[in-house]
Amino acid sequence: MIDFKSVLHKIHYEIGSRKDRGTVATYIPELAKVDINKFGIHLLDKDKNSYSAGDSTTPFSIQSISKVLSLSLALSHIGEKLWERVDVEPSGDPFNHLSLLEQENGIPRNPLINAGAIVVADVLVSVLDNPKKDFLEFIRNIANDSSINYNEEVAKSEKATGFRNYAAANLLKSYKNLHNEVEEVLDFYFHQCALEMTCQQLARTFFLFSNRGHCLQNQKHLSINQVKRINALMLTCGFYDEAGEFAFEVGLPGKSGVGGGIVALLPNHFTVATWSPGLNKKGNSKLGMEVLEKFTTETGLSIF
Amino acid sequence: MIDFKSVLHKIHYEIGSRKDRGTVATYIPELAKVDINKFGIHLLDKDKNSYSAGDSTTPFSIQSISKVLSLSLALSHIGEKLWERVDVEPSGDPFNHLSLLEQENGIPRNPLINAGAIVVADVLVSVLDNPKKDFLEFIRNIANDSSINYNEEVAKSEKATGFRNYAAANLLKSYKNLHNEVEEVLDFYFHQCALEMTCQQLARTFFLFSNRGHCLQNQKHLSINQVKRINALMLTCGFYDEAGEFAFEVGLPGKSGVGGGIVALLPNHFTVATWSPGLNKKGNSKLGMEVLEKFTTETGLSIF
Amino acid sequence: MIDFKSVLHKIHYEIGSRKDRGTVATYIPELAKVDINKFGIHLLDKDKNSYSAGDSTTPFSIQSISKVLSLSLALSHIGEKLWERVDVEPSGDPFNHLSLLEQENGIPRNPLINAGAIVVADVLVSVLDNPKKDFLEFIRNIANDSSINYNEEVAKSEKATGFRNYAAANLLKSYKNLHNEVEEVLDFYFHQCALEMTCQQLARTFFLFSNRGHCLQNQKHLSINQVKRINALMLTCGFYDEAGEFAFEVGLPGKSGVGGGIVALLPNHFTVATWSPGLNKKGNSKLGMEVLEKFTTETGLSIF
Amino acid sequence: MIDFKSVLHKIHYEIGSRKDRGTVATYIPELAKVDINKFGIHLLDKDKNSYSAGDSTTPFSIQSISKVLSLSLALSHIGEKLWERVDVEPSGDPFNHLSLLEQENGIPRNPLINAGAIVVADVLVSVLDNPKKDFLEFIRNIANDSSINYNEEVAKSEKATGFRNYAAANLLKSYKNLHNEVEEVLDFYFHQCALEMTCQQLARTFFLFSNRGHCLQNQKHLSINQVKRINALMLTCGFYDEAGEFAFEVGLPGKSGVGGGIVALLPNHFTVATWSPGLNKKGNSKLGMEVLEKFTTETGLSIF
Repeated sequence: MIDFKSVLHKIHYEIGSRKDRGTVATYIPELAKVDINKFGIHLLDKDKNSYSAGDSTTPFSIQSISKVLSLSLALSHIGEKLWERVDVEPSGDPFNHLSLLEQENGIPRNPLINAGAIVVADVLVSVLDNPKKDFLEFIRNIANDSSINYNEEVAKSEKATGFRNYAAANLLKSYKNLHNEVEEVLDFYFHQCALEMTCQQLARTFFLFSNRGHCLQNQKHLSINQVKRINALMLTCGFYDEAGEFAFEVGLPGKSGVGGGIVALLPNHFTVATWSPGLNKKGNSKLGMEVLEKFTTETGLSIF
Repeated sequence: MIDFKSVLHKIHYEIGSRKDRGTVATYIPELAKVDINKFGIHLLDKDKNSYSAGDSTTPFSIQSISKVLSLSLALSHIGEKLWERVDVEPSGDPFNHLSLLEQENGIPRNPLINAGAIVVADVLVSVLDNPKKDFLEFIRNIANDSSINYNEEVAKSEKATGFRNYAAANLLKSYKNLHNEVEEVLDFYFHQCALEMTCQQLARTFFLFSNRGHCLQNQKHLSINQVKRINALMLTCGFYDEAGEFAFEVGLPGKSGVGGGIVALLPNHFTVATWSPGLNKKGNSKLGMEVLEKFTTETGLSIF
Repeated sequence: MIDFKSVLHKIHYEIGSRKDRGTVATYIPELAKVDINKFGIHLLDKDKNSYSAGDSTTPFSIQSISKVLSLSLALSHIGEKLWERVDVEPSGDPFNHLSLLEQENGIPRNPLINAGAIVVADVLVSVLDNPKKDFLEFIRNIANDSSINYNEEVAKSEKATGFRNYAAANLLKSYKNLHNEVEEVLDFYFHQCALEMTCQQLARTFFLFSNRGHCLQNQKHLSINQVKRINALMLTCGFYDEAGEFAFEVGLPGKSGVGGGIVALLPNHFTVATWSPGLNKKGNSKLGMEVLEKFTTETGLSIF
Repeated sequence: MIDFKSVLHKIHYEIGSRKDRGTVATYIPELAKVDINKFGIHLLDKDKNSYSAGDSTTPFSIQSISKVLSLSLALSHIGEKLWERVDVEPSGDPFNHLSLLEQENGIPRNPLINAGAIVVADVLVSVLDNPKKDFLEFIRNIANDSSINYNEEVAKSEKATGFRNYAAANLLKSYKNLHNEVEEVLDFYFHQCALEMTCQQLARTFFLFSNRGHCLQNQKHLSINQVKRINALMLTCGFYDEAGEFAFEVGLPGKSGVGGGIVALLPNHFTVATWSPGLNKKGNSKLGMEVLEKFTTETGLSIF
């Protein structure tokens, strides 16, 4: 039996003393302002025991981590039909390249790159009555936490600087793979990226992916098959062009965001969320990657 | 001494009887409505003698041909500094590919592909007081013809369907190679593409490129060096990914548009404009290409 | 407790009745000659119990499956230094594309695409006294089976038609990422691909990847960390541009070959090998993919 | 009437005093040994008057310039059928990239990039009885100079280091666009690149391209149409990814080689050859490019 509490504290202590914490994302002012010394971990095991270390209850911008949640809601609405509009292969390329989109006639490589997530957002705009409200409701519901919210300032900044996302959405539109208006889809997309959560909330939200589709209150949100697919996608595509390295070093399905958050999980065992705002050269949280690598090495817990 | 009149009529007669006239562009309704049987030629020699055949006084949408004119006006305003923002190499790729733009950090390959022409439009929006009005004035001035105008319906349609141009403009913006607002630049760009001219007007407008920068009224608009550069660009980049074929088959600097117009010229000899709305597979006027090929073969007049 | 025997027979019966069995690879005559109706499965569980169905003792050409074995031997010799010469990211591209090699200055995307496997072969040619002999010895040793051998006819045919591999090896050489002579490295590589095994032998050979690096005779060949890395690579890169689909549909680390073989495994649970020579459009065994998908669906055994 | 003699000497004097002469190619020892201070010009006008400046009678390795000559001989043998195996579009990419070859299914972009020239070499190996001997004979004949020869040391070095050319040839072979053995074709190709000429010989050899296909002794080697095509190709593709810049700055059909030679011509006016071994960043002779730019600016002689 692994003593998660002591493992977590040991790792938090060791990694937390690193001098090189990477670089905080600066592309929007709201992210640039975050204190680089923030560092939290939260783990939730299969029996719903929770373990915390550091700044695990400070909210941060989850950014791309939200792509897994929008994908889940879209899958629960339209099921496998989603795969007619977005592929499931690793992109082998940084998260914002449009080249592949052209080569592949407007079908994004997978739902976790920006172009793919924009298609998923388009699906939600089509199927939800009040997209932003309903999506937030979904998150609050699976996390059992009505305090989770969008940061409107962040959403506004994303919009003001999101030229590459506008480029992607228009390119998708030219391939008829965006059914709603560019502005409407991106307004939803920028809000989804501007969701704020703490490590604790993040681990609780992702609990369903390690618990066969059942959330903390034991409600079923996804089929076992859908969970398997989402986990496979997180493993192969969750870390931009560092996906192979993550599978290799960590060996867990997971997803990172440029806000410095990472969430990962071992099916039927645990969900873990980390936050440290400094990023490595590939755009993933520097300390977060080290935490997860150390955690799986020390505990021997990985899918491989 | 070549008898342009009889050569033109012979070619118009022969080529005009072709059954396969290509396919009219359908991406906007206004272009799709054009009668595929329209077919005109107009030639203006260095002594300002003019020769017509067929529908040479029917106006059509000049589309991408306008890129040469906006380039000329931009060059006359900011000179060589333009080349810091756009390159002069053939693209070796269809006119709307964004891949190269990413590979080359937001510097378009040349000013005659869409992305390059959008940068040129951005320059004009910066330097002109009333961009659309002033640009039209410039055209009317060099053509000595105040009847030339934008087709507002076409401009509106371009805007409603121009997702790839929105994608390109936003991508340029993300590389900081677009200084004005996307909407403002594209509004100008869509109008420039929506200019309407007859073959006669087109030949008269382009007279300055075969006349060392002096227009029909002998006003100087471009330096000899600028004319040389623009002609070199037309030869190497004027026909999308058929540029090599055009240099090879025709051997004249020229520019085509998806409205079915083509203009070409031999420095110090003549300017010729053709119009036939059916396009070949590469997006250039099918009969127009044949006219120019036959014309240079029959007369032996080419730059090579 | 899952009854592997009845599951295997049920699946073999159901899938074996498929009329569309894909297309046998024809690029070398030796592969084209194989009977498309051959179909075998062999499973070895963690307690070394074995289960067979169909043609599980007929030898076939393992082709690219050998890349995992050469990688293992290279890793056991030079360890992590290997990653200076080959990356660990999914290629997102068919197995024989050279484009990425140029873009990335001669560092292959991963050791399971051809270019990467050729670099691994180069390492073995450098470190082994008698590369072909020693590699075969290694395989026979971990499989505990001295009857395993190269098919010299196949190796010869590979060489005679292997122009793309010659292109890749020469390109690697131009980037100084091939230290030995092209001919010597490819001679080794073509032999490695020409290894013949039965489903039974294949499952026994790959037993060490599901058994923490210990082979059937309990000898340790790889560290736990090396096994984890190889399994991660098989999951993310083992199926060319169908890797994402495989992770998604099957959820097991595995590797396919154009001879129609596939081997897959669940760490600490089982190793399974299938063979059916007909390939799907992506170059993986059609029935083999269906077997593994059905197997993980029916048993609920996958890493996710 | 332009005084070529004084223009040439003035330019040779001015450009010859440049301190930054670029960098001598080092990829084979024979080229690296050449004295960077060598600098010659030779011009031959339409009336066969010749004008020299500097080291115009020192032989150097013509390298890629030979591609125009092999193309001419291939065209004179198989005519337009050549274009089924090689395209005529600018590559928009450095001379040795294989990516495009893959994208375009083994059809090189044009005959002046390496892959295209290797296809042309393959044609000559097929149609000539003694390829190396017959090709040399052809050159000697059009130059009316039996002293022109291959440098066997250079040819040998090209072979020993020509991994990218081996990669290209094997890739062409995989697409069935190379009919003879790789070794045989490359042996011819490496010899052709190892031809040595002086500026004087080079200008005399290329005289036929400015003289409607007739060489110095007035023998006809190419049709007017073939000359036009070759000149168009030199203009659009003769300077790797500096082709647009050359058309733009110089405005003459021409071809450069990594040995530091450049030859250019104005149809019906003159042929000019320059040699200075230091290359600019794009791989073209630094002083040579400046000579031609200055020459066309001072004389006003260009095709535009």
